[in-house]
Amino acid sequence: MADTDPAVIDGRRVRGDASRRAVLRRATDLVSVEGLDGLSIGRLAVESGHSKSSIAGLFQNKEGLQLATVAAGRSIFVDVVVEPARQHERGLPRLVALMRNLIDYSRDRVFAGGCFFAAVSADYDSKPGPVRDAVRAAMHDWYGYVAAQVRAAVDAGRLDLDDDGVELLAFSLPALYEQANARSLLWGSDRPYLLAQRAMRDLLMGAGADESALQALDG
Amino acid sequence: MADTDPAVIDGRRVRGDASRRAVLRRATDLVSVEGLDGLSIGRLAVESGHSKSSIAGLFQNKEGLQLATVAAGRSIFVDVVVEPARQHERGLPRLVALMRNLIDYSRDRVFAGGCFFAAVSADYDSKPGPVRDAVRAAMHDWYGYVAAQVRAAVDAGRLDLDDDGVELLAFSLPALYEQANARSLLWGSDRPYLLAQRAMRDLLMGAGADESALQALDG
Repeated sequence: MADTDPAVIDGRRVRGDASRRAVLRRATDLVSVEGLDGLSIGRLAVESGHSKSSIAGLFQNKEGLQLATVAAGRSIFVDVVVEPARQHERGLPRLVALMRNLIDYSRDRVFAGGCFFAAVSADYDSKPGPVRDAVRAAMHDWYGYVAAQVRAAVDAGRLDLDDDGVELLAFSLPALYEQANARSLLWGSDRPYLLAQRAMRDLLMGAGADESALQALDG
Repeated sequence: MADTDPAVIDGRRVRGDASRRAVLRRATDLVSVEGLDGLSIGRLAVESGHSKSSIAGLFQNKEGLQLATVAAGRSIFVDVVVEPARQHERGLPRLVALMRNLIDYSRDRVFAGGCFFAAVSADYDSKPGPVRDAVRAAMHDWYGYVAAQVRAAVDAGRLDLDDDGVELLAFSLPALYEQANARSLLWGSDRPYLLAQRAMRDLLMGAGADESALQALDG
């Protein structure tokens, strides 16, 4: 009877959810260092100190675990980079906040191996399937969100760009960020973030941004 | 006796070298798609149609195979991107040729999965050891070579930059290329290469490059 008592079931669910979150947090760190291919139920059991059977119980199989880990990485990225930027006005202020948060997120090593999506992006063109699709969808949405802010900045008269210029800036800003993340990991140095900030500033100034809007970039 | 006959030994060595090259070419393609972690003697045996024992005979173990594959990828990159650029004058002409060759190399899918070093760079911060060191050394040398061309262009009066500007341009040009490689793989489109070329042109023009030197970029 105890097994079907709602309080007992709720208690189990709460413990299950907490375990799931803890295991997934460990999984996102692991993936940020080694990529998605290195993630298996056996490996995560060793890393997290949980039993293989309990992790298998939470995620069924390797693909289920990988999908849940991509979703968890995406959720943390949104919490740390996107949500705080949404407190700023759409367009240039939000674009600058996004770039600033992005650099902080990588520099502060929110994930042990730097940017989560840089680490999984090497899996773009590995075998077709739901995991690849999830990574692609996350990247697509992120790039689309950056482009939408550039466009909104133009619409609000805060940047002076034609359609090609919008596309070019929305391409170049993430390029600079991703290079900073990669070179920082390569050299164990923070200097690449400074270079990315300067290059972003130059591009935004070149696109007609006012100096005051750019202060938040270095902040 | 035949076993020690020089002609027989040479014949074996030639066949061994040819096998080694063929297997390594397949290994570089595989790695460009799946990263270094996916490369094992067993997997490569399946992919290349050679027996596991013959591949183990050529490379001893997984690490030996990974190191030989990084060396092979690097050698192809040098042949396709760096060597042809060395026919151009040091400085701005060579820098422009490098960027052009780099874009062609990625767009033409010299490796099945796009840029070899973009694919292995996710392994930067995986477990310390000779494989990571080899990848880092290759990236370090490449970025250093690009920076040397920017500096030579300034010394020859073809670009107008201070030391910070040299560092910034040497950071930004590879950033644009790597973004183009990644987005092209993501979207299955050539458009990102066009964006990278435009953005590179803008940066070089902004640094004082003469229009004529930039024609080779779009070629």
